[in-house]
Amino acid sequence: MSFQTELQNVVSQVDGAVACSVMGFDGITVETVQANEQTSGELELSTTWVEFANILTQLKNAAQVLKTGGVNEVSIHAENVVTLMRLVSPEYFLVLALKPDGNFGRGRFALRVAAPKVKAEL
Amino acid sequence: MSFQTELQNVVSQVDGAVACSVMGFDGITVETVQANEQTSGELELSTTWVEFANILTQLKNAAQVLKTGGVNEVSIHAENVVTLMRLVSPEYFLVLALKPDGNFGRGRFALRVAAPKVKAEL
Repeated sequence: MSFQTELQNVVSQVDGAVACSVMGFDGITVETVQANEQTSGELELSTTWVEFANILTQLKNAAQVLKTGGVNEVSIHAENVVTLMRLVSPEYFLVLALKPDGNFGRGRFALRVAAPKVKAEL
Repeated sequence: MSFQTELQNVVSQVDGAVACSVMGFDGITVETVQANEQTSGELELSTTWVEFANILTQLKNAAQVLKTGGVNEVSIHAENVVTLMRLVSPEYFLVLALKPDGNFGRGRFALRVAAPKVKAEL
């Protein structure tokens, strides 16, 4: 199955969305949809996301020893990009990159809606 | 100087706040204010925060090689607790723990307002 439709939905409904992907915790991107606007050169998203996937893996492992319960969602606000990650399954997660002035609340909502749909296709 | 007032402000203005601290990137808590409600036993916040401080340090370091720019804010939504962290200086950050149904948007706002005040006292 293709996740293209779900990812396209997320990107098109969130103001300031740069790209949305399904990624594995091994750092490999399963599928990506980029916004139409010219963004290449500004950010090396793939490198960034591999790094962030690594962080998310650590959080997932930390949650097993801490009493926080499972980690569902992580957001990282950097100067040039806001990154939202949402767990889909123990192996996969959704990641959405937004411009710093993008609609963060809407992005969270869109990922929350998309996650079960993507999970159903895995 | 004491950060007690700023931390108390954050805790009292955010619905569902559990505790707010000034922490160093070395994992040492400078000061903490806890909400009045009984929360002990539910969460070992100090252990959790040391773990999260470690994650934040990695993100800070990663930002130096990535083109994301400096990381200002990180949030981690786990089943039992939502943790918000906001950079105050290269050595210190604010951390706020919320109940999962706490007011996340208000928490982000409160930390954004508190950060420069705390920085001025460092």
